[in-house]
Amino acid sequence: MRDAFHDDLDRVSDDLVEMTTMVGAAMRRATTALLETDLTTAESVIAADDDIDNLRREVDDRAVDLLARQQPVATDLRMVVTAMHMSSDIERMGDLARHVAKAARRRYPDCAVPDQLHGTIREMADVAERLVSATGQAIANKDVHGAVAIQTIDDQMDELHRKIFGELLNQTWEHGTEAAVDTTLISRYYERFGDHAVAVANRIVYLVTGRYGSESEGLKR
Amino acid sequence: MRDAFHDDLDRVSDDLVEMTTMVGAAMRRATTALLETDLTTAESVIAADDDIDNLRREVDDRAVDLLARQQPVATDLRMVVTAMHMSSDIERMGDLARHVAKAARRRYPDCAVPDQLHGTIREMADVAERLVSATGQAIANKDVHGAVAIQTIDDQMDELHRKIFGELLNQTWEHGTEAAVDTTLISRYYERFGDHAVAVANRIVYLVTGRYGSESEGLKR
Repeated sequence: MRDAFHDDLDRVSDDLVEMTTMVGAAMRRATTALLETDLTTAESVIAADDDIDNLRREVDDRAVDLLARQQPVATDLRMVVTAMHMSSDIERMGDLARHVAKAARRRYPDCAVPDQLHGTIREMADVAERLVSATGQAIANKDVHGAVAIQTIDDQMDELHRKIFGELLNQTWEHGTEAAVDTTLISRYYERFGDHAVAVANRIVYLVTGRYGSESEGLKR
Repeated sequence: MRDAFHDDLDRVSDDLVEMTTMVGAAMRRATTALLETDLTTAESVIAADDDIDNLRREVDDRAVDLLARQQPVATDLRMVVTAMHMSSDIERMGDLARHVAKAARRRYPDCAVPDQLHGTIREMADVAERLVSATGQAIANKDVHGAVAIQTIDDQMDELHRKIFGELLNQTWEHGTEAAVDTTLISRYYERFGDHAVAVANRIVYLVTGRYGSESEGLKR
């Protein structure tokens, strides 16, 4: 009985890791779509978000099924509940990648972000990629140290987000209001992407240590 | 055994309704802080968000405890799982009210939003209030029709959000980039507040009818 439970739980964990891979690819490709004004890639990111949503639904259905059939208690129960919370955060990361792709599509054939900010956006995309990779590994290995490190990686995202806002609020901004609105939203999408990675990380910390720590910090912003 | 379960579940439901009341008050007061540049109210909204976070944690802990002690199956199990998802969405609505209050504080003693948009923001706040009220009632009564109506109320929020963006992207915008950035974010906070109400509503529909419908539509934007 317990073995069947842990087999099922491993499968849930594998699916969560797969979800992190999917949202990582989505954000990387959304960034390409944005910075290289690549409409085909934008469309494909938008369409592929359904796959992430479907996998999330499978994870949740399997988790509920696990609860019903195996009636886990204590740590086993916490693991199933945590998995459902994590699937929600990771699915939302996919939505944010889709938002970036939609912003790219909306301004095509122009670029939604002024040239001078492309370097910073590219850095945000790099941080996003490191965040999902670290999140996937932390889930796979139930690695508290890895999870704690995600907060530190996310600090870099916040720093880049502040840098973008510094440019926006600089008196010398000369790209007009539309570019300001687009840049504001796009920068926030990357920043929120990082916040959800932190939320997943904090769930792992809680699961393993039983302590909330800065549980919802990542989602506070 | 079953009676104790339903007593506990009623308490979870009551707490969720209480959370909707709290986030409704938070958004109403955040709007006052914003439009009347009222720093004291802004600070109090920001501070009071901890109460919402704490109640959310209590709801989740009680839900996990219910799963562990009563090991519900079928509809009872779905109700507990749904409650956890709803607490997450409602807590996030509180965060969004806090974001509005923080934007008010950031620009104090100036107003973060130009005078000409105050009417539209006030309308968004009114819609937000109707949304939380309808959400609380739909939770209390497990009312599918009420839940479905929430989507229609949220359409008004989306319309107001588009109206704000229309103003922002109008050639005659003369309030500068800082006001554009603030207005973009603030309008999005109200719009996301509505999306989370829709997400809660869709959970109720799923719980009662077993159909997903446009389950994550509200959170897609």
